[in-house]
Amino acid sequence: MTSDHDFADVENQISEFSRERNWDKFHQPKNLILAAMGELGELAEILQWKSDSEVIDFLSTNDGRDRIKEEVADVAIYLIRICQTQNINFVDAIAEKLQKNEINYPVEKSKDNASKYTELK
Amino acid sequence: MTSDHDFADVENQISEFSRERNWDKFHQPKNLILAAMGELGELAEILQWKSDSEVIDFLSTNDGRDRIKEEVADVAIYLIRICQTQNINFVDAIAEKLQKNEINYPVEKSKDNASKYTELK
Amino acid sequence: MTSDHDFADVENQISEFSRERNWDKFHQPKNLILAAMGELGELAEILQWKSDSEVIDFLSTNDGRDRIKEEVADVAIYLIRICQTQNINFVDAIAEKLQKNEINYPVEKSKDNASKYTELK
Amino acid sequence: MTSDHDFADVENQISEFSRERNWDKFHQPKNLILAAMGELGELAEILQWKSDSEVIDFLSTNDGRDRIKEEVADVAIYLIRICQTQNINFVDAIAEKLQKNEINYPVEKSKDNASKYTELK
Repeated sequence: MTSDHDFADVENQISEFSRERNWDKFHQPKNLILAAMGELGELAEILQWKSDSEVIDFLSTNDGRDRIKEEVADVAIYLIRICQTQNINFVDAIAEKLQKNEINYPVEKSKDNASKYTELK
Repeated sequence: MTSDHDFADVENQISEFSRERNWDKFHQPKNLILAAMGELGELAEILQWKSDSEVIDFLSTNDGRDRIKEEVADVAIYLIRICQTQNINFVDAIAEKLQKNEINYPVEKSKDNASKYTELK
Repeated sequence: MTSDHDFADVENQISEFSRERNWDKFHQPKNLILAAMGELGELAEILQWKSDSEVIDFLSTNDGRDRIKEEVADVAIYLIRICQTQNINFVDAIAEKLQKNEINYPVEKSKDNASKYTELK
Repeated sequence: MTSDHDFADVENQISEFSRERNWDKFHQPKNLILAAMGELGELAEILQWKSDSEVIDFLSTNDGRDRIKEEVADVAIYLIRICQTQNINFVDAIAEKLQKNEINYPVEKSKDNASKYTELK
């Protein structure tokens, strides 16, 4: 899917948003993790009592998808704030982790197999 | 911070990684939320017993920052998978939420104030 | 199910365990919440890629049930520590919340209906 | 702290509450973990932007302590539901885990030391 936005612009908006409100002082790492937990909890709450088929029905509606979309964004914003406050580049962090995952989960061992790499023989 | 990677490339790698391993069948929304919780829990565990000043010391080391970076990436990858499986553009989701936040948290009310928008007078 | 243990004894063991190790100094509320999150994340991880029927199979084995049991206990111990450090009685907290729930979720409205009380008409 | 309630009575109330509302059908293990996550997230949200000294001030008020108490209870109720649906005794689960912890964290190694047992030398 192509995006209508440049990711670097979005990152700048996030740091600018916090700077304008003098919120950097609240954004210690442990606080941001607690905040990410709060948002992930809201995401969980939306689907918690739905069966797999009810989840599919719910997410085939615009309203359902919008609710999920918003909570995913909330968690993501706090993850990006963790990175910004620690001088970590979010995209590079993901790219580097993907390289590790390529090594830890070779296709021939992981195909059709969701086991953690420590349990792959 | 400038990134060495294009975000759209990283997103493609993520979907390709799952496709090659036939993992799409495991990636139902509730499962991905549980997986994101697992990774966010690992992030929490790294800092849980550290005081604010110990967190700063820890994150001033390369080793400390690398550990945080890796767990943030793990959570992010699952958020991106939620988006990919629901045909949501991750970057647009964030951009749209930032627009909402601009309205919910006007600078004059939110400056120096971490209250939730529902509690802002 | 009858228990082999008295709950007050178990609570005493928990506080004694921490006291003997001089751990009370680590047990600030935010730290304990992060620790509970870490343990809940481990619980999530055990089941994250299992379908509903695979969960049933897994939990019909002693090994499966023991793994769940242990992680539930880990989360519970941190919840009890939050209570102990704040002079809250854990059992009374639950009993009082149940009374609230009885009011918020009247049987005639909530029967077969998992909606949150704020959404019950 | 002595409790005004017997824990076995509280457990019975919890299962009865669910039975009367025909909610057992919603209480699959993965659903209950998502629900516990939602409640733990609400607990995190209460304290997320407070410094350690602000947390102490907040929790020295009745209102502050009541809010924490209620969210702790919500998480606990879902943990107890996980146990009830899997025929696990909650109190015994905790008691057994404490025995394991006694072995994993010998006082002489763990005194003043919050390291995980896998990292204790």
